[in-house]
Amino acid sequence: HASKLPQVGTTIFTEMSALANTHKALNLSQGFPNFKSDPLLIDLVFKAMKAGYNQYAPMAGSMALRAAIAQKYQALYKSSYRPETEITVTAGATQAIFTIISAFVRKADEVIIFRPAYDCYEPAITLQGGIPVSVQLKAPDYTVDWDVVEAKVTSNTKMIIINSPHNPSGTLWSKNDMLRLQQITKDTNIIVLSDEVYEHIVFDGQSHQSACLFSELKERSFITASFGKTFHNTGWKVGYCCAPKALMQEFRKVHQFNVFSVNHPAQKGLADYMQTPSHYLKLSEFYQNKRDLFLSLIKGSRFKAIPSQGTYFQVLEYSNITNENDVAFAKHLTITHKLAAIPLSVFNENKRDDKVLRFCFAKTNETLEEAAAILCGI
Amino acid sequence: HASKLPQVGTTIFTEMSALANTHKALNLSQGFPNFKSDPLLIDLVFKAMKAGYNQYAPMAGSMALRAAIAQKYQALYKSSYRPETEITVTAGATQAIFTIISAFVRKADEVIIFRPAYDCYEPAITLQGGIPVSVQLKAPDYTVDWDVVEAKVTSNTKMIIINSPHNPSGTLWSKNDMLRLQQITKDTNIIVLSDEVYEHIVFDGQSHQSACLFSELKERSFITASFGKTFHNTGWKVGYCCAPKALMQEFRKVHQFNVFSVNHPAQKGLADYMQTPSHYLKLSEFYQNKRDLFLSLIKGSRFKAIPSQGTYFQVLEYSNITNENDVAFAKHLTITHKLAAIPLSVFNENKRDDKVLRFCFAKTNETLEEAAAILCGI
Ligand SMILES: CSCCC(=O)C(=O)O
Ligand SMILES: CSCCC(=O)C(=O)O
Repeated sequence: HASKLPQVGTTIFTEMSALANTHKALNLSQGFPNFKSDPLLIDLVFKAMKAGYNQYAPMAGSMALRAAIAQKYQALYKSSYRPETEITVTAGATQAIFTIISAFVRKADEVIIFRPAYDCYEPAITLQGGIPVSVQLKAPDYTVDWDVVEAKVTSNTKMIIINSPHNPSGTLWSKNDMLRLQQITKDTNIIVLSDEVYEHIVFDGQSHQSACLFSELKERSFITASFGKTFHNTGWKVGYCCAPKALMQEFRKVHQFNVFSVNHPAQKGLADYMQTPSHYLKLSEFYQNKRDLFLSLIKGSRFKAIPSQGTYFQVLEYSNITNENDVAFAKHLTITHKLAAIPLSVFNENKRDDKVLRFCFAKTNETLEEAAAILCGI
Repeated sequence: HASKLPQVGTTIFTEMSALANTHKALNLSQGFPNFKSDPLLIDLVFKAMKAGYNQYAPMAGSMALRAAIAQKYQALYKSSYRPETEITVTAGATQAIFTIISAFVRKADEVIIFRPAYDCYEPAITLQGGIPVSVQLKAPDYTVDWDVVEAKVTSNTKMIIINSPHNPSGTLWSKNDMLRLQQITKDTNIIVLSDEVYEHIVFDGQSHQSACLFSELKERSFITASFGKTFHNTGWKVGYCCAPKALMQEFRKVHQFNVFSVNHPAQKGLADYMQTPSHYLKLSEFYQNKRDLFLSLIKGSRFKAIPSQGTYFQVLEYSNITNENDVAFAKHLTITHKLAAIPLSVFNENKRDDKVLRFCFAKTNETLEEAAAILCGI
């Protein structure tokens, strides 16, 4: 059987985590916390199981959880989404993204993505016969050249996928970026998929510019979000997406035959936990402290950093250490120095190599200290 | 945006469960147990969360769970699947089915399905541009006319989807059925998707004829299975599929970008629970008792039954009660008599109406008694 995705191998995250395990390296590659989730949240899920929340959740998600999500959008962004028709709980943001693309992209549709791009966008597009159209963001600052975007928008552009705070670069889009996107898509039929899974992790007093804050943009946008990144439990695989009713209706047609519904006790536990917003709205400070610790500890190293503006990732440039390509250098770092990171070239068009590695700082301070000591010794 | 699935509405399960709720009817429509999951299993998931199994599981599933699954196939069917390369844990069997179809079916590929067919097959095929080719099984006994199948196999046949024990009819395929399928697919490139989610629920001393028991068939087959049906927790959404390495490799390319991985604490709890097979291998007796109770209680009614051979569903024919079509009669039963069931015509080609409703007997004996009393009064 000829492959429908001949160019696809194993994701870099699986590959680097496996290499880290094999070589007993510190794993700052795949993005996940190495500290505990709140015991209260775990207790709430246990309570849900004991109370019998073990059968199918409603297809679009537990009503209590959808209501809590709607409340969050109201409180943080003064933006209204109707739980009944405009919010759907998904098996992680990845499933939301795959399903959105599957529901709308057809053969020969163009989808604009910004490179370096998180690795699940492109294969989902290709699988539907769509054409990924890349806009390259360039190291070291990864800003957008909107004239380039404008030039790449054609009558075949079906979708634009954006992601701020941006994984892997840790950059943030400004209000002006969002306004420019709104202006470019005005009077078109383009769907915007706004991947906002790091919305609660934004540094230095800046604020997250959610697509829902821009009224015309909101009308054409899916927003995808993740509980795993917010509550330190990436392995629970609960996320969600929001969109205007007409878009969500098409989404649900595919969602119901893709996964039908999502782990019910986790949904019920999360819904109860969200009744107390103070449990989850202190993330920016928490992660800013970790970023600052990590950056201060590597000051003496030969790696170059522009401080991350959001996400739990810090990219480091290493061109004055070696000329090795970033994949080779990431492997060398893992095998020889026992520290795993993600090479950025795998997310770029034509594997463009800016000599940049991504380090996840969602780690205990001890782990960050060990990792920094390794980096300082290189 | 023109719909990619214009013919798709809300699944009949969501629709009937909602109608049951609105009218406070007994819900024997959507298939799920109304009794408790084993507290031991719930405790094991709680332990897993407390022990820190809260970050991404490996993409293909927790190794412990895959090993337990491999052991099961060895013990029950003397069939070997390698956990590393031939077993993948999924967010329910539905996600496995959607992903298998997405990974292999292309535009104009034909996929043979048997009607009445579980409702997730057809939209997944259509979404990939494939063509569902129906073979109708006819009430009251739903046996297969293999000459019809043979006549429908063409050079465009990419896949055949089979399902035994069969939902919704409750029938079972014999060894001869499987041998005939093996013979028909011999020397072709056809992939068989064998939906075996009710494998552990088989009655009257018959045995489940898994596709893995037939060596040539196994080489071309995906088997999908479900923990929810076996452990009384349909809402946890953990299932899996098995296939030879080359097929599984293509599956995982799509799986990793659809959901990436599956709820980790549930996987860990299930893996621990499966160490004691006696916890989960008594299902047939358990459900046969429920079937027998239900059938004995409705003996005096005007509904006609051929005893279910497997699954937790019993179909009842009602043509000597009314000539109403089955969708109308199912709604009438729900609204007026406070008992919800599933009309079979929605799973048939051209909505063929055999005047048959499906009742789920995965219910407490009290619920079954109440339901039977209602049926006897009609
Ligand atoms: C799905 S594994 C990758 C986790 C992640 O989001 C990342 O490391 O960027
Ligand atoms: C996914 S909801 C439907 C449950 C089920 O498998 C059935 O009722 O047939």
